[in-house]
Amino acid sequence: MKIYGADYYPEHWPEADWEKHIKIMKEFEIEWLRIGEFSWAFLEPKEGEFNFDLFDKAIPMLKKEGFKLILGTPTPTPPAWLIKKYPDILPVDENGHVREFGSRRHYCVDNEHFIFHSLRITEKFVERYHQYADMWQIDNEFGCHETTYCYNEETRKSFINWLKEKYNTLENLNYNWGGAFWSQLYYDWDEITIPKNTPTFKNPHQMLDFHKFSSDNVIKYSKMHKEIIRKHSEKPITHNLMVDFFDIDYFKYAKDLDIVSWDNYIPTKEYDFYHQSANHDLMRSLKKIPYFVMEQQPGRVNWRTINDQYAPEYIEFWTKQSYLHGADGSIVFRFRELPYGAEQYHGALVEYSGNPTERLIYYKKSKKETPDHIIPKKEVAIYFSYENAWIHRINHLNTTFNYWNAIVEIYKAIKMFGYNVDFVYGEDKIDDYELVVVPYAMNIDNEFLNSLINYNGKIIMTAMSGIKDERNWINKEKYIDLFNEFGIKIDDFSGEKNVEILYNNNILNGEFWADKIVVKDAEIISVLNNTAFKNNPIITKKGNNTYIGTVLNYLDFSHVLSLALSPKVLGQDILITNTNDGIIILNAKSSKNTIYINNKKIEMEAFEIIKKG
Amino acid sequence: MKIYGADYYPEHWPEADWEKHIKIMKEFEIEWLRIGEFSWAFLEPKEGEFNFDLFDKAIPMLKKEGFKLILGTPTPTPPAWLIKKYPDILPVDENGHVREFGSRRHYCVDNEHFIFHSLRITEKFVERYHQYADMWQIDNEFGCHETTYCYNEETRKSFINWLKEKYNTLENLNYNWGGAFWSQLYYDWDEITIPKNTPTFKNPHQMLDFHKFSSDNVIKYSKMHKEIIRKHSEKPITHNLMVDFFDIDYFKYAKDLDIVSWDNYIPTKEYDFYHQSANHDLMRSLKKIPYFVMEQQPGRVNWRTINDQYAPEYIEFWTKQSYLHGADGSIVFRFRELPYGAEQYHGALVEYSGNPTERLIYYKKSKKETPDHIIPKKEVAIYFSYENAWIHRINHLNTTFNYWNAIVEIYKAIKMFGYNVDFVYGEDKIDDYELVVVPYAMNIDNEFLNSLINYNGKIIMTAMSGIKDERNWINKEKYIDLFNEFGIKIDDFSGEKNVEILYNNNILNGEFWADKIVVKDAEIISVLNNTAFKNNPIITKKGNNTYIGTVLNYLDFSHVLSLALSPKVLGQDILITNTNDGIIILNAKSSKNTIYINNKKIEMEAFEIIKKG
Amino acid sequence: MKIYGADYYPEHWPEADWEKHIKIMKEFEIEWLRIGEFSWAFLEPKEGEFNFDLFDKAIPMLKKEGFKLILGTPTPTPPAWLIKKYPDILPVDENGHVREFGSRRHYCVDNEHFIFHSLRITEKFVERYHQYADMWQIDNEFGCHETTYCYNEETRKSFINWLKEKYNTLENLNYNWGGAFWSQLYYDWDEITIPKNTPTFKNPHQMLDFHKFSSDNVIKYSKMHKEIIRKHSEKPITHNLMVDFFDIDYFKYAKDLDIVSWDNYIPTKEYDFYHQSANHDLMRSLKKIPYFVMEQQPGRVNWRTINDQYAPEYIEFWTKQSYLHGADGSIVFRFRELPYGAEQYHGALVEYSGNPTERLIYYKKSKKETPDHIIPKKEVAIYFSYENAWIHRINHLNTTFNYWNAIVEIYKAIKMFGYNVDFVYGEDKIDDYELVVVPYAMNIDNEFLNSLINYNGKIIMTAMSGIKDERNWINKEKYIDLFNEFGIKIDDFSGEKNVEILYNNNILNGEFWADKIVVKDAEIISVLNNTAFKNNPIITKKGNNTYIGTVLNYLDFSHVLSLALSPKVLGQDILITNTNDGIIILNAKSSKNTIYINNKKIEMEAFEIIKKG
Repeated sequence: MKIYGADYYPEHWPEADWEKHIKIMKEFEIEWLRIGEFSWAFLEPKEGEFNFDLFDKAIPMLKKEGFKLILGTPTPTPPAWLIKKYPDILPVDENGHVREFGSRRHYCVDNEHFIFHSLRITEKFVERYHQYADMWQIDNEFGCHETTYCYNEETRKSFINWLKEKYNTLENLNYNWGGAFWSQLYYDWDEITIPKNTPTFKNPHQMLDFHKFSSDNVIKYSKMHKEIIRKHSEKPITHNLMVDFFDIDYFKYAKDLDIVSWDNYIPTKEYDFYHQSANHDLMRSLKKIPYFVMEQQPGRVNWRTINDQYAPEYIEFWTKQSYLHGADGSIVFRFRELPYGAEQYHGALVEYSGNPTERLIYYKKSKKETPDHIIPKKEVAIYFSYENAWIHRINHLNTTFNYWNAIVEIYKAIKMFGYNVDFVYGEDKIDDYELVVVPYAMNIDNEFLNSLINYNGKIIMTAMSGIKDERNWINKEKYIDLFNEFGIKIDDFSGEKNVEILYNNNILNGEFWADKIVVKDAEIISVLNNTAFKNNPIITKKGNNTYIGTVLNYLDFSHVLSLALSPKVLGQDILITNTNDGIIILNAKSSKNTIYINNKKIEMEAFEIIKKG
Repeated sequence: MKIYGADYYPEHWPEADWEKHIKIMKEFEIEWLRIGEFSWAFLEPKEGEFNFDLFDKAIPMLKKEGFKLILGTPTPTPPAWLIKKYPDILPVDENGHVREFGSRRHYCVDNEHFIFHSLRITEKFVERYHQYADMWQIDNEFGCHETTYCYNEETRKSFINWLKEKYNTLENLNYNWGGAFWSQLYYDWDEITIPKNTPTFKNPHQMLDFHKFSSDNVIKYSKMHKEIIRKHSEKPITHNLMVDFFDIDYFKYAKDLDIVSWDNYIPTKEYDFYHQSANHDLMRSLKKIPYFVMEQQPGRVNWRTINDQYAPEYIEFWTKQSYLHGADGSIVFRFRELPYGAEQYHGALVEYSGNPTERLIYYKKSKKETPDHIIPKKEVAIYFSYENAWIHRINHLNTTFNYWNAIVEIYKAIKMFGYNVDFVYGEDKIDDYELVVVPYAMNIDNEFLNSLINYNGKIIMTAMSGIKDERNWINKEKYIDLFNEFGIKIDDFSGEKNVEILYNNNILNGEFWADKIVVKDAEIISVLNNTAFKNNPIITKKGNNTYIGTVLNYLDFSHVLSLALSPKVLGQDILITNTNDGIIILNAKSSKNTIYINNKKIEMEAFEIIKKG
Repeated sequence: MKIYGADYYPEHWPEADWEKHIKIMKEFEIEWLRIGEFSWAFLEPKEGEFNFDLFDKAIPMLKKEGFKLILGTPTPTPPAWLIKKYPDILPVDENGHVREFGSRRHYCVDNEHFIFHSLRITEKFVERYHQYADMWQIDNEFGCHETTYCYNEETRKSFINWLKEKYNTLENLNYNWGGAFWSQLYYDWDEITIPKNTPTFKNPHQMLDFHKFSSDNVIKYSKMHKEIIRKHSEKPITHNLMVDFFDIDYFKYAKDLDIVSWDNYIPTKEYDFYHQSANHDLMRSLKKIPYFVMEQQPGRVNWRTINDQYAPEYIEFWTKQSYLHGADGSIVFRFRELPYGAEQYHGALVEYSGNPTERLIYYKKSKKETPDHIIPKKEVAIYFSYENAWIHRINHLNTTFNYWNAIVEIYKAIKMFGYNVDFVYGEDKIDDYELVVVPYAMNIDNEFLNSLINYNGKIIMTAMSGIKDERNWINKEKYIDLFNEFGIKIDDFSGEKNVEILYNNNILNGEFWADKIVVKDAEIISVLNNTAFKNNPIITKKGNNTYIGTVLNYLDFSHVLSLALSPKVLGQDILITNTNDGIIILNAKSSKNTIYINNKKIEMEAFEIIKKG
């Protein structure tokens, strides 16, 4: 890969330590550094008074030492003096509580004072240091800690403006929001509220618009940063996107970024490397060009209920995993453990004491073993949309269902079969894929619906797909043509805890949902063994098109998947990427592993990469 | 029964659909329609400007088509313009958070603007359409979403007025509220607060008054609707009461209604038809005259964590179940599935598409099989009071105890024995019953206490009964005469998780509570096998009077019940009503069932009703 | 012991009852009464108008009857009229919600109106009744219901003043608070906020200061009471401290008290008498002189989820337990069960009816059997600090860890070995102890660190000890000398759910935490069998010094303890105190018990005390 580095904060250390840090960086071949994103209070100690002493020393020096620099615009932590003077900058939660100063991301992007001051410091920062930048990061982790959403009056006004642009007339809005239900008709734009703290269920169409608006709002704010940077620099602009995060439409946002980067932390209670892999593929698929990891978890973090440590060799595995997914780089968060501050327990490459950890040895090793970069072939596509993530959040038939986790189960089955996965969004072309999976896609984007109908490969579609439209209305008519391709019709559906499926004399266990399928012209693969639709078909197949009317975990999904694909690999704890140059195999075990490819036995060392021509 | 119908919303559909709807209604013999209760924003688009175009078309047309109409006063959803202009209409929760516009029931009944505007639209509506009404429904589901309680300043003032009327002097209030404890003496009426958000436990006497006041407050508001309706119409007035709902004193409220109706939804996690039956009997017992179901759950609902579907034949069962309890009718919510709005997943009789569901076939079948109506005989009475429901909520010895659920266990045992149950309230006469159960009745109404002492039939009384008075003071002296009838005295009590009872060499399992019973003149049926009162009596009997000093589930209660009653029936999943004309039996299974009555075997078809002379 | 009594409220009863109460008190040898602490609304019915009629009758009369009186300053329940006039007295929680009138402790100690009025009533009360006092109690249970913390503007200003005194300059504060992280630099004192409701993790150094400040704030308020009392009376001053309570630094506070007293309630879900014992020893250790129980749980309480009753003989056991820990007395809360108020279900010595309970018989018996008082020998010391309790609360590596509960496990193992335990605080001397345990002591007080390094006895130190400093910074350098005494170095640590330890071919089960121990000069007792540090040492020993790099329950800790101490006793459910006069043994079972001391079998009766010379 091209980018190996660490997230580094000169402002956290006495200047005397910088030299020692650089020595270690060079010894262990750290080449890129991200810098600056939390520095506002240093740079502007008082309103309009700027002090660049710190970075005037650090940035040119680091550049001179040969490091490539990713400069972060310093806006995620507005200083105390600013909040004191303009407390209306603070965001407000759904209950009307102000989210206070004292951690980070304590701002509302619709607040004029925040916009003015954050853009001014951004401009000052970019003006001063643009010649040292090899890349730019805008702000930091937009939307973290649920900060995509703000419920103050300024946001309400901004929401109304967004709605005016979308709907043009109130008649149009009233119709599309289903205002006839529960008397929710508006006769003046200013009557419209942000959906919050209602006695009972909110309007699902208004809620979907509020999600879209909130996402757009962050993207709009990001664009302002981009414009400032572009006045001074042509270097690539990125933002560090987050793992398992769906509050912002990253597909839309990625259009504004030159390169996608993301923060690779383990979000699940139980570690499962496939879950990380799914996020890698989701992130790579945003722009379909090389991407990289801006913050690689080093081992222990600080924000979990129980923060356990990982053996140091995991940094090797995670770097190699990024490589197999086609990443262009991997930057470790953070260079050195910090004895103070809210992240004082967060692990790093260098100890609290200033001594290198064992991690650095594995870091250097993995760097050597991940040359150039890999381009995965197109094999299997999984349809994904951020709008569906939002639709699934809002008044669900089964509130225990999680869209992304259910998709990861499917993803995992496909990866265990040894296939590459791309996530495809509405406008992506699918003709080159052998198999397209359409999982839990309540609304299918019009463009993608068209692609599907004209697609000649294999499709697996699941329950919940094709029942709603882009307004979050139930709208089965939109999908009549699509379901005709499957030779079925969905007459009814039911939220379920456990769904029993008769499959080749076995019972498979579905969850969450059961469709009542009426077969018009399809083979019945399985029928239900319980629910109100007992004995009705639940898995059907017509030609290339398989439909599953419930939610399966990765093991049970594998049975259905084998109707469409043959496994390329036999073994456990391996990750495979197929390229035009051959197969790249990574042993995901920290010990020896035996696998079979094309019936050929392969013995692998701990975290070893093997390439088969 | 006399009333079969559906809840119908012409305003939700294009006028072009109305004709198709009417055709289906007629084909499937729907005769009654409820209409109008969520229509305010259509009828009054701006303050004081009214627009009746929609209902001027729909209502006379439906009437002309021969439907009987229940007209709902359109107040549960105040329009956005009204809230914009008078935001003080919005209710305030215990933490001071405003409960916002965007769903329904967003009003405080003590707000003068709400009272003025809601009565004005009610008057306009009633004036215009009274000649089409066959019945009136006031508002909709008062108290739903915990809206019985409001914590704003207007409610506080209203509470103080209510207290002045009740207590006359502050000395009197201070004494009855136990103000000597924790220095809670008031020297000016205006010092009194609504009990909310205190550092620790609230005053239990003030809390009970706040429950009584809040209930009265809703009833007071309802009376204002009634007065308006009565100016124009003599048709019966009802309100749709709720299942498993105890915030409003329905017994008191029912006096203001001409007929009781209720909304029959499944409130429990696991479906248990006896739980529905208990609600039927509770509702019928309110006025002791025919009642009906205003909203019958059609199958799937939308407001549960997991919304599962029921097989269509359940609509037949539920209709027949209403019939067996003596209902006068059953109206299904709702006529057609709505693709938009917060209830977009709610099932109905007609599909989203406009096509009839199978449910309609079962609806029509059940209508044929439920002729006239049934009058259940008086057999067993269970004492119930809304005040006790409130007392049990407030600073309980065992906060895991649920008054109504514990009563349903007793109810279930009695129904499985094949007896009718009436719930009796304070002023009800009990002489005609064979058995009276007094369960968990912390306070026994003075009138009822007198009835009990003079009653000659069998009594089963349980733990917690007779320890408090109507002020929520512990007051055992009030019940000395009653306990003399049982030959016992309760010396002490204990909250418990598990209570072991030695009963005929078996162990029965009590829960929640154990009494320390001192026997003066009674037979000891059982003693305790654990708790601080181990080896003390826990079930006693003196003549007709049995006392159980703990809480039993339906199975263990059956053992004690058999000391008082002989089972009339042997079998499972059946519902029986005894009338002067014979026994009516309903098979509650969706398949064949075998039962025994008087040792006579009876084979029943799915959901079949049989009448034995 | 010297103090036997009851908490008594003349104001709760008609005067006619007083005589009957006194008769019972005398019959059962109650000698001390606590009185007055919740009486403000009686004494000052209007602002500045005082009415002492009630206590003018009660107090001299009780004194004349021969009772010793503990008079409580009447401030924990400010009256309604005061709150009505000065609503800013009410405390504010972290979300900005006012904590309202209607229970108790509804005041902010930084509010000037509260200070003025509460000190005025205190002065009036002390002036009037000082000649009757045998002891004084200040207020009641400071900090109960999380009232140590207030988040209003007055508290913020008070916090800033406290910080100014501590840090002198903002540069100093910024440095010690790690303001370089997340841009938390302050340039004006008034920019500083109380840490509350932040989008994500708060500053751990600011949080520790907020805990220290809040504790100091209560102590400061208490001092104002003390000054008033001292103007009129030289009688001992106490405050009723609480069980399992760590919001206030009781060690610091105890310096202001003449004698420590505490409220002995069972705080754990499952009753474990050792947990009570641990609190006894913690309280006695505060001042190292006799202490007593101000409120002894009588049996049932009212504030638990499930309030179960205890057999009456437990009052005997609890009194004897206090005696064995060296207490000077035991006062039972409360004299008589009260039929009204928020504590209406709380048990007492006298029934609701006014009749004595069986408890009184056991009370009298236990009084006879607890003569003089006991002075436990110094044997084992456990280091404890309130600052550590706070550090453990704030951004923990493992948020499921509970400092005190983990210490109680260690305490229990030591007590089961038959040894006395003192808790030692920073400045306490440790030379006389055979064993010192340093458990989970993230920060070790500088003075104590010095004591430890110079100590020649046995030390057992556990995980988490010695990794932080008094600022809540991770600071291993502070402890280099200490760890040298153990011959080890801690290289890394990990939050864990389950930790497996190989110990003499068995597996011990650790929890919560695992250290990565590097042995320099120590014996390896055990190694890890799982975690990222598998096969690394986890228990080590160098001479007298044992280190345990994880958290053990009492059973597994016993294995390690046996490396340092030999058990003095064999048996279960016994409590032992070793004195210069011999061993005092208390059977903690409510039935017979067999134990062995020095291989000598001893048979004990229920709750019997035996003394071995």
